[in-house]
Amino acid sequence: MEISNIDFLYDNEKNLSIINEWFKNFYSIGTDESGGVTRLGYTKNEDIMHGSLRNLARSIGLKYSSDEVGNTYVYQDDYEDCYMIASHLDSVINGGRYDGVAGIVAGLLILKWIKENNIKIPVKLCAFRCEESSMYGIATVGSALVTHKITHEKLKKATNKEGVSLYDALKKRGYSPECKKIDNIKGFFELHIEQGRILEIKDIKIGFVSHIAAPTRYWLTIEGRQDHSGATPMDFRMDALCAGAMIITKLEEIANIESINKTVGTIGYIDNYPNAFNVISGKVKLGIDIRGIDKNSIDRVSGDIKEYIAKVCSDRKLKYDLVNISSDEPVKMNENLIKKMEKAANKLSEPYYVMPSGAGHDAMKFVDICPTGMIFIPCRGGISHNKDEMINYSDLLTGTKIIFETLISF
Amino acid sequence: MEISNIDFLYDNEKNLSIINEWFKNFYSIGTDESGGVTRLGYTKNEDIMHGSLRNLARSIGLKYSSDEVGNTYVYQDDYEDCYMIASHLDSVINGGRYDGVAGIVAGLLILKWIKENNIKIPVKLCAFRCEESSMYGIATVGSALVTHKITHEKLKKATNKEGVSLYDALKKRGYSPECKKIDNIKGFFELHIEQGRILEIKDIKIGFVSHIAAPTRYWLTIEGRQDHSGATPMDFRMDALCAGAMIITKLEEIANIESINKTVGTIGYIDNYPNAFNVISGKVKLGIDIRGIDKNSIDRVSGDIKEYIAKVCSDRKLKYDLVNISSDEPVKMNENLIKKMEKAANKLSEPYYVMPSGAGHDAMKFVDICPTGMIFIPCRGGISHNKDEMINYSDLLTGTKIIFETLISF
Repeated sequence: MEISNIDFLYDNEKNLSIINEWFKNFYSIGTDESGGVTRLGYTKNEDIMHGSLRNLARSIGLKYSSDEVGNTYVYQDDYEDCYMIASHLDSVINGGRYDGVAGIVAGLLILKWIKENNIKIPVKLCAFRCEESSMYGIATVGSALVTHKITHEKLKKATNKEGVSLYDALKKRGYSPECKKIDNIKGFFELHIEQGRILEIKDIKIGFVSHIAAPTRYWLTIEGRQDHSGATPMDFRMDALCAGAMIITKLEEIANIESINKTVGTIGYIDNYPNAFNVISGKVKLGIDIRGIDKNSIDRVSGDIKEYIAKVCSDRKLKYDLVNISSDEPVKMNENLIKKMEKAANKLSEPYYVMPSGAGHDAMKFVDICPTGMIFIPCRGGISHNKDEMINYSDLLTGTKIIFETLISF
Repeated sequence: MEISNIDFLYDNEKNLSIINEWFKNFYSIGTDESGGVTRLGYTKNEDIMHGSLRNLARSIGLKYSSDEVGNTYVYQDDYEDCYMIASHLDSVINGGRYDGVAGIVAGLLILKWIKENNIKIPVKLCAFRCEESSMYGIATVGSALVTHKITHEKLKKATNKEGVSLYDALKKRGYSPECKKIDNIKGFFELHIEQGRILEIKDIKIGFVSHIAAPTRYWLTIEGRQDHSGATPMDFRMDALCAGAMIITKLEEIANIESINKTVGTIGYIDNYPNAFNVISGKVKLGIDIRGIDKNSIDRVSGDIKEYIAKVCSDRKLKYDLVNISSDEPVKMNENLIKKMEKAANKLSEPYYVMPSGAGHDAMKFVDICPTGMIFIPCRGGISHNKDEMINYSDLLTGTKIIFETLISF
């Protein structure tokens, strides 16, 4: 597509001022005592975020609508076939102000450029509901619903801390878990903060996601015997924490070996019982999280740690229980779309880095529906899900320009 | 001392029935939801326990008194010089019914025998206050106060969870932390449950304590960096829990080597932050507990683990903070008294085992005041500080007989 005048794209001062204004618009919503924001999926604060987006859309002269599960769409015209730019407006508990919102601001800016310059690209912005797992324990709910990637059984099993199922919560809000499947999407773009420090360390402002890693997760519970720390000789002990510690160390060792395949292994959760200075651990529970983009590598880490757990517990005569809670497939982004985005970056003389995403995103749900791409921008110190989450608006603007340039290259 | 008729000592049926009745007398005091008992030091429930002991003493026709810090004494006559049989009546939170109380029942039974058979042995039973550290974080308070083994500074620093200091709590209850030092004790006996499984495993009913181990304790805090578990490659991580796990494993290894000197090393407490499935550990706090009867061996374990902590944290570029919170000296029981007790056991044809105590006891406070000895009886499964704490009354009776036989052998 030829556009006569794209000066608007290069008026950085004006664009940064708009971005700043829009973030300010959302700033106070869900602000909590931590200084961060709590805007949980399918709660009032998320509703207020969506209402705020509709107000912004109206102020630009754009149209908007909602679907049967509460996702919000913003567009200039209600095209039959269109490109989609999407992200989310919910947050974790005590979260940051850029995770999700950055992608919405990017999409809205593109729609503003299109509207004001009368450019004929069929684009819709979508704000998906409940991308974070904080409320119901499952993530990317709004995008999974409209792509029919989640079963009613799973919706009924997923409960909030009051025990209300996501299925019942949707019904109560007047939504239809039996919603229509989204179609006629020609291409899908999601701009998101990286949530890691790779771009910061490389001092590159733009990342193109090659794959989205899939987590394989286990709960491991080891049963030892609770004994007095002073009165129990070393050779009489059945110390669950000592077994757990060996497994934590081993997972790191195995994951280090497989890091050549970009696989990571983490134990971030430990619950020790009774957890007292003078009592030998009687039980320990560990959360094992393995992620990668190479299923064979993930399976090797998974297999090796399972074998080691069996060995350690057998050597120490401890009972254990290992429960697999997820083993998703890694997801590959569209190579042609990455190439197009690389070309756009080159046109803007912007260095970029092609990298995997360790975290999951709404984009995962679209890879089998249409060409799907993701753009990462750095977040300061790799910090996210935290009040200290911070971005440079100029990086957001750069990412937005790349999506725009890619759109007009079709 | 010659006693014409000691048939009373061998009327097991009668003695066991008395023991049973006395435990029943205490049974319900402080019973909590766990099914165990909560009789914290210097609280109403401990007062009720002491009141119950006074009632039992009165029912046998014995005298009783209290000292300036609330310890209760029971005796036939108010001797100038006397032997002391002592233990405690408080418990931990959700504790058992035998830890402490067993020693009081033993002493009371001896006083009953003395009273009813008109035997002239100068013996006092003492129930010390606040032996457990659950309330104010410091143990053996009542015995430490009357032996002047605790400073006012320490009493002022020790606070309960409401922030009230032990010093203020004593004052408020009308007690005098400035109490008179106990004297004129000719010998000290404490019968206690083992709180470990050595006697059970050896199938021996009587243990004579050779030493009481001293705990050397540290709080170790390691600072890592909290990162997203999916978005952070292995070589970018500063995982505090992984460092902690290596230290847990190493302490066990070092303590295993020093177990030849009866030294033990335990990490029973771990606090991981933020402790989430998908967040790399940003901070970990460990409670390190090293105990033994050989100070050089304890010092070796202590030195080796300190060196290892420094190495691991340096290799991983992690900050750490190691705070020593206690390094007490192990305490040796009186060898002559052990020999006398061994002779008494032989007289009763009762096998015994001379063993260290890993746990601390009131007896520690008397070793430099008079010949001091401790008798252990088995507790089922080594379980104590727990509702499932259980003893055989016949073992308690055997231990009581050994103290009595030792007393009349002087």
